[in-house]
Amino acid sequence: MRRPEVVREPGLPDSVTIYEVGARDGLQNESATLPTAVKVEFIARLVDAGLTVVEATSVVHPKWVPQLADAEQLLDLIDFAGDIRYPVLVPNERGLERALAHGVRDFAVVASATETFARKNLNRSMAGSMEMIGAVVQRALDAGLAVRGYVSMCFGDPWEGAVPVEQVVGVGRQLLGMGCYEISLGDTIGVATAGQVTSLLGSFGAAGIGPDQLAVHFHNTYGQALANTLAALRRGVTVIDSSAGGLGGCPYAKNATGNLATEDLVWMLDGLGIRTGVDLDKLIDTSLWMATHLGKRPASGVVRALGSVPERDV
Amino acid sequence: MRRPEVVREPGLPDSVTIYEVGARDGLQNESATLPTAVKVEFIARLVDAGLTVVEATSVVHPKWVPQLADAEQLLDLIDFAGDIRYPVLVPNERGLERALAHGVRDFAVVASATETFARKNLNRSMAGSMEMIGAVVQRALDAGLAVRGYVSMCFGDPWEGAVPVEQVVGVGRQLLGMGCYEISLGDTIGVATAGQVTSLLGSFGAAGIGPDQLAVHFHNTYGQALANTLAALRRGVTVIDSSAGGLGGCPYAKNATGNLATEDLVWMLDGLGIRTGVDLDKLIDTSLWMATHLGKRPASGVVRALGSVPERDV
Repeated sequence: MRRPEVVREPGLPDSVTIYEVGARDGLQNESATLPTAVKVEFIARLVDAGLTVVEATSVVHPKWVPQLADAEQLLDLIDFAGDIRYPVLVPNERGLERALAHGVRDFAVVASATETFARKNLNRSMAGSMEMIGAVVQRALDAGLAVRGYVSMCFGDPWEGAVPVEQVVGVGRQLLGMGCYEISLGDTIGVATAGQVTSLLGSFGAAGIGPDQLAVHFHNTYGQALANTLAALRRGVTVIDSSAGGLGGCPYAKNATGNLATEDLVWMLDGLGIRTGVDLDKLIDTSLWMATHLGKRPASGVVRALGSVPERDV
Repeated sequence: MRRPEVVREPGLPDSVTIYEVGARDGLQNESATLPTAVKVEFIARLVDAGLTVVEATSVVHPKWVPQLADAEQLLDLIDFAGDIRYPVLVPNERGLERALAHGVRDFAVVASATETFARKNLNRSMAGSMEMIGAVVQRALDAGLAVRGYVSMCFGDPWEGAVPVEQVVGVGRQLLGMGCYEISLGDTIGVATAGQVTSLLGSFGAAGIGPDQLAVHFHNTYGQALANTLAALRRGVTVIDSSAGGLGGCPYAKNATGNLATEDLVWMLDGLGIRTGVDLDKLIDTSLWMATHLGKRPASGVVRALGSVPERDV
């Protein structure tokens, strides 16, 4: 069986946009650093498999993310003219300007739902980082371009523990107020369970922010990503972040698995009769090909079940 | 964070009984064969971690399941007198008699939802296997003992593909008619998605068989097990099969992962405020200890995230 049986579940959307993060969030958390040509081929194969939003890279100082040090060379090899969207993550105005110079038309910024993560990851206070982000968003809007806002640590923080829902909603509201077209709610450390997802989306709704302005970004660190996605679909979310082959990891848990695997997501959505436009076979082939470059087994049940993958990590 | 934040989800049960299958379904699908003493310690540790139903082994010809060839020696080392239930799987009357002689008080039988799996796994037609199972159940009931009925291939069959819902309900109804106290609906190859789960449970309900007579048994082959469990909880199912550390595999997909990992299940149920009585820390320690005996990394996100596990399979 190379395809799930299709049985619709009442109350779920008819179609979903997959926001593919493998080339950015995935690769930046892999220990191997790949040649630019491999990354470009990866992105091309993802598009050929039917993905329409493929986050391409992050224009950040190589000291912080050496795996993506070739961001600008890579951007020169991408065609931004067509219908496919290639968002690029930028931490600050300098990154934005560099990305703009290479023709990037879609951007993403990262905000933190907690003070500690803001200081550790963004190197300033929450307020300070929002100021920096606001300048980036304004500059992009001035250029007539689109910016997505990530909110990290929405469901738990490795230093602070539980994160107050109001704090998450507050950061999301600020990002939308700045002009972000969409907020991606990140479970950066993968601890969330389904009730939290339902509850947070409900709190956004109560604040007047509906599922059409929200995306979800789950990590499978604790095995919860797909169950949480199901909970988000029930609340009407139709943009789901995932990573081909489950690429990536978790900087806060050394042996942990990474982002929700796109193949496992597509298997569920196909089974639920929710359209994604993704060709699962092509996607699996892409992840198997990437696995040979990374020398590791894909963190995707679907890829392992259907692909001829090495029995052990090499 | 060693514990999920608790946020209840409306419409879910208050408590769940975990039916732990690691020592049987798990170990019978591992390539390593463990000493009896290790299995006995494994079972004792599972009970110490709070599990109250621990399937102990299968009394089957060693030719078919060499990993469990020591079933009778193992049964002699288990105390069946207390409150803990140690069901034993038996394929036929001979197996039942042997298990009875060792003091077993809870049994499980396996029926197939498809003709092909009945012939390949049970070595007879569906009708013939149901006759054999009927005799086993009757003999156990005559002895005043309890029998659970598994139905394999409820959501898809590697040879037949889609499995008609009526066929699954028919087999389940027959098992309950024989006197099984509970039917465990098995996604033996792990292909199910949430809509199928909702739909099958609905069909059982329409046939007058409610969630109080049903359990679910998901494999994580395609990464769907926990999402499917969430769908089953919504339909009122309160008995969930799982395997500590995700022990096991899939004989139909060589590199695939096995049963739903008990730790990942407990993380979700803890997060949803659903009582299980399981001490997650003790359970994780047990799976880490078992991993040293099997020489492989546990197939559980929770165990990998929280335990000090080897970075690679050894």
